[in-house]
Amino acid sequence: MKISVDRDSFSRCLTRLQGVVEKRNTMPVLANCLIRSGDDKVYLLATDLDITIIDSCPAKVKKPGSVSVNARKLYEIFKELEPGEVELDEPEAQKLVINYQNFVFDLQGINPEEYPLLPSDEGYEYFGIEAEILSEMIDKTIYAAAVEEGRFTLNGIFMEKHEDGKNLRFVATDGHRLALIDREVEGLESLNLEKGVILPKKGMSELDKLIGSVEGKIELGVKENHIALRIGDTLLFMRLVDGEFPEYRRVIPEDNPLKIKISREEFLKSLRKASTLVDEKARSVKLSFKDGKMTIEGRHPSFGIARGECACEFQGEELEIGFNDRYLYDILTTVSGENILMEIKDEMSPVLFKTDDDEKYLCVVMPMRI
Amino acid sequence: MKISVDRDSFSRCLTRLQGVVEKRNTMPVLANCLIRSGDDKVYLLATDLDITIIDSCPAKVKKPGSVSVNARKLYEIFKELEPGEVELDEPEAQKLVINYQNFVFDLQGINPEEYPLLPSDEGYEYFGIEAEILSEMIDKTIYAAAVEEGRFTLNGIFMEKHEDGKNLRFVATDGHRLALIDREVEGLESLNLEKGVILPKKGMSELDKLIGSVEGKIELGVKENHIALRIGDTLLFMRLVDGEFPEYRRVIPEDNPLKIKISREEFLKSLRKASTLVDEKARSVKLSFKDGKMTIEGRHPSFGIARGECACEFQGEELEIGFNDRYLYDILTTVSGENILMEIKDEMSPVLFKTDDDEKYLCVVMPMRI
Repeated sequence: MKISVDRDSFSRCLTRLQGVVEKRNTMPVLANCLIRSGDDKVYLLATDLDITIIDSCPAKVKKPGSVSVNARKLYEIFKELEPGEVELDEPEAQKLVINYQNFVFDLQGINPEEYPLLPSDEGYEYFGIEAEILSEMIDKTIYAAAVEEGRFTLNGIFMEKHEDGKNLRFVATDGHRLALIDREVEGLESLNLEKGVILPKKGMSELDKLIGSVEGKIELGVKENHIALRIGDTLLFMRLVDGEFPEYRRVIPEDNPLKIKISREEFLKSLRKASTLVDEKARSVKLSFKDGKMTIEGRHPSFGIARGECACEFQGEELEIGFNDRYLYDILTTVSGENILMEIKDEMSPVLFKTDDDEKYLCVVMPMRI
Repeated sequence: MKISVDRDSFSRCLTRLQGVVEKRNTMPVLANCLIRSGDDKVYLLATDLDITIIDSCPAKVKKPGSVSVNARKLYEIFKELEPGEVELDEPEAQKLVINYQNFVFDLQGINPEEYPLLPSDEGYEYFGIEAEILSEMIDKTIYAAAVEEGRFTLNGIFMEKHEDGKNLRFVATDGHRLALIDREVEGLESLNLEKGVILPKKGMSELDKLIGSVEGKIELGVKENHIALRIGDTLLFMRLVDGEFPEYRRVIPEDNPLKIKISREEFLKSLRKASTLVDEKARSVKLSFKDGKMTIEGRHPSFGIARGECACEFQGEELEIGFNDRYLYDILTTVSGENILMEIKDEMSPVLFKTDDDEKYLCVVMPMRI
């Protein structure tokens, strides 16, 4: 292989690969990327076996071929090059030589044949979704997905079609809280999705980063146990998380009698103050509803108590209820409405959170004992 | 004690204390600060027993007194308050209540009598030094001071008067490299400093942060085993490091025959490129001087080799020499001159680094075996 590329374009591709490349050294080959020449372009591929990214940028191809080298090192080298043309040469097998002005980087590669077999994008039926909508749906659910490796069906975002056939639905839960969003998407009927699928958290987080720089539509297709996404010139594949997503509908309370409306900004300010004195392990804040006010309290066993009030509208019985302060913080900083609506049954049962500007988004949080 | 303060002024004081407060929980009281009312002001004090900071800001004093609470928590609380007047009240001993709009913070304190006895600023003869000069002297030496706890006489900056009586000198070394700076300072004769003293690295780093926001002169005085500094309204005390600073003059080579002049910017760019492929543990780069060029090389046992050239002027024999790349990086990013001057004897002996715009600054670096 012998090609020349523009430093900036190639460097941007390398940046996009970094999130996928495996950092834990389980299989050394997964720390590598694969560089493969095409027609007037070069492909850059990285995979952790579950998530695969295929990117490309223009290249002058003098001699076609492919080579596999450490992705992190290649990225670091390109970061240090100034803008301009860079030559990538493979003078002998498993060697990549980067010629740049008065510098030579002589990289040890591995046999590209040893690189894992990558998914192909053939056989997918793609449907287009606005980048902005997809990004919103990820942002408003991903924080509620689990981070533990143990319950792997919770380590992702569940995607399904709403019964109405018009809305796409994303749901995520870690067993203590849940976030659900519906968004109307044109042409949803062309999405091949009979039952819901679980999209891995790491992959969705990478997807969200890739969307950042894109306008217009993202192409999305599901086939067997994979989802494929086209984000501009970049292709992203994810292996779907195997297993059944929990019966989330049962967790969503429907007729919680105590209804509260509270300014999101005031709630957030008060929460941040109360959080200065929560116990770092338990992280519990106490909310009390009485006399048209919400009292919020953080209590640290050594340092003291922070307690304050917030005006709110509420209907129903007086109540005290405890929450993990970070769960509240995640909701209050993710949504955009002016007011937060809370629906509570009692201090033991799931609590519903909504905003007054979005009928199609909800969160459920389990209270904590206080 | 009952006082009210302006949130912003008090918060700025709390920010300045944070670097001094002890993070390792060796003595719980050292995680606290002491708040003491004065005449129309409030003093804020923190110490780790070696370094003490005394700050103050205006206050309306309704009832004089003092109280000691966790410095980090107090800082976090003030960060969450909006601008305005804040009341600090001590309704009973060892309690600090912060009243702010609709919020109350009820902090558990300790008996201020238990707070360590703090140094007084009496008996010091102060002399003034321009903030800018003092900051430069710290920046250009502190990186060469040791970080290991073991050789504690190296964990600081050595300060002495130059023999000429006009220049103040700072020297730091970690045994592998050394940095020395002289600066002419008016009125140096008023500094009570017969022999040199070692100023602790942590304290000098805090001092450097405090200087950041100050214009004009810093007042500096040495008495017995302490140095006192007045930075605006802030007082900083440091216990001098006990012991003898090494005989640094012997380390500075005087007549190294091989003299090299090289553009600092080109050197730095080449170093950064070569550093992409150094061994992460050994961190060695190899410099070779031959045919009016410097070749620089980083070599990683698994990933490959980065090698490039830089134009340079040199007189003397051809030579290959190895350095820790971070030591070179520290010098090249700290100095400001256009060219770096290197003076080398051989690949085993200390190498002198200077810049062409500053006669009064030098570094010495021990080569590495290559």
